[in-house]
Amino acid sequence: MTRGQFITFEGGEGAGKSTQVKRLVARLQGQGREVVATREPGGSPGAESIRDLVLNGAADRWSPVTETLLMYASRRDHIERVIRPALERGAWVVCDRFADSTRAYQGAGGGTAPELISALETHILEGTRPDLTLVFDLPTEVGLERAHARASGEMRFESKGLAFHQRLRDGFLAIARAEPDRCALIDASPTMDDVEAAVWSAVSQRLSIDA
Amino acid sequence: MTRGQFITFEGGEGAGKSTQVKRLVARLQGQGREVVATREPGGSPGAESIRDLVLNGAADRWSPVTETLLMYASRRDHIERVIRPALERGAWVVCDRFADSTRAYQGAGGGTAPELISALETHILEGTRPDLTLVFDLPTEVGLERAHARASGEMRFESKGLAFHQRLRDGFLAIARAEPDRCALIDASPTMDDVEAAVWSAVSQRLSIDA
Repeated sequence: MTRGQFITFEGGEGAGKSTQVKRLVARLQGQGREVVATREPGGSPGAESIRDLVLNGAADRWSPVTETLLMYASRRDHIERVIRPALERGAWVVCDRFADSTRAYQGAGGGTAPELISALETHILEGTRPDLTLVFDLPTEVGLERAHARASGEMRFESKGLAFHQRLRDGFLAIARAEPDRCALIDASPTMDDVEAAVWSAVSQRLSIDA
Repeated sequence: MTRGQFITFEGGEGAGKSTQVKRLVARLQGQGREVVATREPGGSPGAESIRDLVLNGAADRWSPVTETLLMYASRRDHIERVIRPALERGAWVVCDRFADSTRAYQGAGGGTAPELISALETHILEGTRPDLTLVFDLPTEVGLERAHARASGEMRFESKGLAFHQRLRDGFLAIARAEPDRCALIDASPTMDDVEAAVWSAVSQRLSIDA
């Protein structure tokens, strides 16, 4: 049995990732593949209970270091119970946010030491690393405006202010530049159909899928 | 302002730590000291909300590695918001369980790699290490019997079986042997008054307190 492919979507708030995850999953399923669509923080019952702690409440409810540990606790549960079993049985996994979000939100945005984040990547991810990461980029103000219009109940990160979100955007751009083999930068400004086409172009070329 | 002393109580289930924490705190307060009595997992509002996730539910609700991360998330919050501020203002802190419990429960008991636990101690504890740790020791069967008689609602670890608890006891004994300058081994078998006397003897000698 060939291991499935692991695709992650990354980027700041309001970039339209969730919509594009759904469209990509539908397209891959249309080719007859088993695809598991999931998200972080969360994606397994245990990880979703940690998500509730992290995404709700006041902006200063947790320090960036505590947040990093909570994110990795939920990630480990998600990997063990959902992602790794799916990849091992040959399914493809498409995940809305993964480890790069910790580097950007808690690292670049929050100031958590890169050494701690690297140690967690080594010990907690082990071999479960994305084959392809789509980094959605959008001017910070535009993303925040879209996120506020969406108005979900989980607004803890949205409430952190413009300077935080600017560091976040820079953090994601730095990741995409540092790992060009794994990451494809997607301009999230155009229409949803145009973004969908850019996503499909990256996925089909990088993972050698026939259109 | 002199930094306060940081004393931790460690050991398996049913060893009578909580009772002895109360007695030690009363004695230190009787000498006119400011003493903060606290516990792990928990000890701050955020950490207590993580405690609820960790101590309740089925024995296999979390893997040992996920548990390790949740314990360190709650520990970091507790350090930042309670332990470190108290020590810095000169208060003494007496804590029922701390980092050694992760080494014993998730490490020796659960099989989490020592390298992960060491990395977390380095990055998360930073300088907040106990000045004195009292390691309560009791034959495993006796401790479990006492813990079941106590019958608190938080029984996730008690439910893990005798072999787990035997590894736990061995883990605590190994810590006490490896760090004799920091740790005092306390025989938890005798009466509460005798154990109290042993605790006071260790505290007053090691931390140079006048009786």
